[in-house]
This record gives sequence, C-alpha cells and structure tokens, in this order.
Amino acid sequence: MRRIRLVIEYDGSSYAGWQVQENGLAIQQVIESALFKLTGETVCVTGSGRTDARVHALAQVAHFDTASRIPADKFTFALNTMLPADIRVKYSDEVDENFHARFSAKQKHYRYTILLAPHAGAFTRNTALHVHTPLDINVMNEASKLLTGQHDFKAFMAANTKVKSTEREIYLSGWSIDGPLLYYDIAGSGFLYNMVRIIVGTMLEIGKGLLPVESISAALKSGNRSDLGATAPAKGLTLMRVVYDDFDTDEKIYKFDQ
Amino acid sequence: MRRIRLVIEYDGSSYAGWQVQENGLAIQQVIESALFKLTGETVCVTGSGRTDARVHALAQVAHFDTASRIPADKFTFALNTMLPADIRVKYSDEVDENFHARFSAKQKHYRYTILLAPHAGAFTRNTALHVHTPLDINVMNEASKLLTGQHDFKAFMAANTKVKSTEREIYLSGWSIDGPLLYYDIAGSGFLYNMVRIIVGTMLEIGKGLLPVESISAALKSGNRSDLGATAPAKGLTLMRVVYDDFDTDEKIYKFDQ
Repeated sequence: MRRIRLVIEYDGSSYAGWQVQENGLAIQQVIESALFKLTGETVCVTGSGRTDARVHALAQVAHFDTASRIPADKFTFALNTMLPADIRVKYSDEVDENFHARFSAKQKHYRYTILLAPHAGAFTRNTALHVHTPLDINVMNEASKLLTGQHDFKAFMAANTKVKSTEREIYLSGWSIDGPLLYYDIAGSGFLYNMVRIIVGTMLEIGKGLLPVESISAALKSGNRSDLGATAPAKGLTLMRVVYDDFDTDEKIYKFDQ
Repeated sequence: MRRIRLVIEYDGSSYAGWQVQENGLAIQQVIESALFKLTGETVCVTGSGRTDARVHALAQVAHFDTASRIPADKFTFALNTMLPADIRVKYSDEVDENFHARFSAKQKHYRYTILLAPHAGAFTRNTALHVHTPLDINVMNEASKLLTGQHDFKAFMAANTKVKSTEREIYLSGWSIDGPLLYYDIAGSGFLYNMVRIIVGTMLEIGKGLLPVESISAALKSGNRSDLGATAPAKGLTLMRVVYDDFDTDEKIYKFDQ
C-alpha cells in the first residue's frame, strides 16, 4: 500500500461540507467516488480538517492509501477527468505512511471575504458576505491584533463541541482592503469548530459599533461564548493554505484571490 | 413617460445571452419580468449591445421607458429584490429621452480572462478560459498593438453578419499578467459580432506559435476571416465599461476583478 497526498481546490457552494454528512453531498464523498472509478478501491480520504457546508478551499490537503500502480503525480490529472468542475486537484505526491493530513498539520491559513458596497455582487454571491453598512476597519484591525499569540479560545467555539484542549496559537490576524473587498486573514496552529466565523462575526459587530474592542479580551479571559457576536455566514470563508514540517501548499500550487 | 438608465452586473454562465433568444433564458428577459412585477408595465429594456450566451458584464448599460412613479434611483434597490443573485443592478438614474443605451454609446471596454496553469481552477471555471500550454505573452502583446487605431475589421467578424460599416477605432489593446491569470483588455468605439473573441482566439494561436504576428496585419488588409484563428470560447469574456458623452460606468459603480 502507498499513501498519496492531494492538494484540492473547491468552490464549496453546492456541497454539504468536506466530511460525509447525513444530509447532502460531501466533497470527501465526491473524491472517494472518483477514486473508486479510477482504482476500483473503496478508500477513505482524510482531510486536514472539516470545512462546513458552503465553505471553500484554495488548498485543502488530504491523504488516502491505495494498492493501485498509478504514478503518484498522475492522480492530479486522472482525478480531474472524473471530478466536477467545482472540485479540482492541484497537486498529488506519495508520502510516508507516517504522514497524516490532519495530525501532521502544523499551521493553517483561512481568509474571510466581505464585499463592502451599496449593492451585492453577481460574481461574489457565493464567496463573499455582502455588507452595506459602514465598518470601522481601524477598530476591527485593533480587535484582530488581540488574538495573536497563545490563548485559550474556549469562548470562540460552537456550543457543545468536544475537544481535548481549547488552547491554540495564532500567528497572523488582520484585515486588508482591496477596492470594495475586505479580507480577514488568520493563520494559526489550528482552529476550533466555527472559531474563524465567530471571530469574524464578532469583529463585524465591533466594526459597526455594536460591541467594544474589549469584548475580545473579555472572552479570552472568561471563556464565555456569550461575550462574543454572532457566527458569520459560511460562504465568506476559504481555507487558503496548510503547512506541514516539510510541505507547504503555497509552494506547490498557483494561487490567486477568488 | 420617463426614461430610466440602469448599470447592470451579471454572471452570464446560466443565460442564453443578453438579448431574448428562441432557446434559453436571456438576461434582458429576466430584467423585463422583474420590471413587470415592479411596475405592472410590459417594457422593452434596450442594452448597450448584445452579449453572447455565457458572456459576463461588470457594467452593462440599458434603458427603458416607464409611466411608474418610482424614484429613478430606487429602481436599483427594487429590482435587486426581484432579480436572481447572478444579475445585480448597480446604479439607476433618469435620463433625457434622447439618451439611447446603444446608439449614444461612445466607447466600450471588454476584458478576456485566461487561467494559464497546469490545472483548471474551481473558482474560474465559468469566467476564464483554461490554457495549460505555454504562451508567448511578448509576441501576443506585439500582435495586440497592431489593432489600435482606426481600421476596417471586416475579417474580425462572424460569417454572415450584416452591418453598415466594419470600420472601428480601437483605443486600447493589451495583455497583462496577474499571477496565473492573463487579461486581455480592449477598448474601442464599438465591436463587430464576435470581434473580441476572434481577436483573442487569433492571439492565442500566435502565442502558441501556430500563426505569425503578421496574420493580424494581413487580415486587416485582406478582410478575410480565414487569415485569422478560431473564435475563443464565450465564458472568458466580460463587458467591463461603457462610456457616453456625459456618463462613464467606471465613475458610478464599485468595480473589481472577478
């Protein structure tokens, strides 16, 4: 058996998320079906993490084990002939059996996109949240800086989530502007369930003057979800990059803003 | 009766083009239906020009006449509540009865987008042509410069098209690179049917070394369609801007790359 690693780009608009769900089609499932057609094997494709329904990826990493003799780099081409146009494999290689897409991941980078304009956009309808009220970007950037470093993010998690530890380290957290588009970029050692969407939802309320900047530091201390704002909609979120000890998706794929 | 002008953005992927066709749903038709719901009137919406099936617009201009008392600027908001998410009105105002979206237009700007990468993209699947073979951008830019100025573009037109004059003036014609995306931007006094797609298809063959740069000048002289390359696929094409004597869509809308 060989272990194959994939880097996958997907427009999540039409899917029920990465992982197989009871309701709706999962991206993992679509890739497993394509691999079955290709190899005749029923394989389990393990991703670097789940992405929710309607969340996107420019660089999701996944692995699977196979007895097939298809050269590792040929899985990219072969899978793309089987997959729908909104799921594209960008890179494939063979890895050591100790490599695990999820457990070996050292860093992930997510981006949340907002269209700040009087009217919604035809082209960003599935990939950005439309906001038509003014936002104070300076205050939002101030809030974003409170998240960097090692913290207990217990408050920044969907209710009833079970995890061993809620400690995470954030390396990068900040907003940038590109015409009418606002980007929030966050990179960290890992993320709790709904963590990025809760952070964005809270910063939007801060940017509208509905919550003080200090609500971030208060929540980091208290661990109370109720100190924070609403969870931002899924469609604005994109997994941009996954980094391992000796592998960085940014070095393997052409990447560009959606 | 008042004449209302609209600036419209659309993702043309799901439509049979701007103008009402026998087969498939036209964008014009969708807007006319929305106006009927809004005003109770059966109106004819006239665009600055037709766009083909699957061609997009960041700024199409159109006009219609109405007896309704809805304030001119409110058509933007009102129509957007009726229209599907892939058609968005960005601006509306009242114009003189002498204004005509098509006949008053002085300049149009189109962009053709190419994804130059080993593998297709999940996000650009409907808005860019995927090319995976090398292209000589310098030679393509050389070819693009031969088009600027006043020329008879008879060769750059779909067969059996009937027009009074095939003379057009091109103000801007050039390629630019943004990561794996290539943009061809062309602005001119007007365009013949399929003109931009024939220009792009020809330049792609020039960039692949299948046609010489001189085929452009030869076609401008001969007027023979057969001197040129294939018509490039519709999905890469976007109408970016329409300019009138006293109105420029670039000054009225937020615009950003797809």
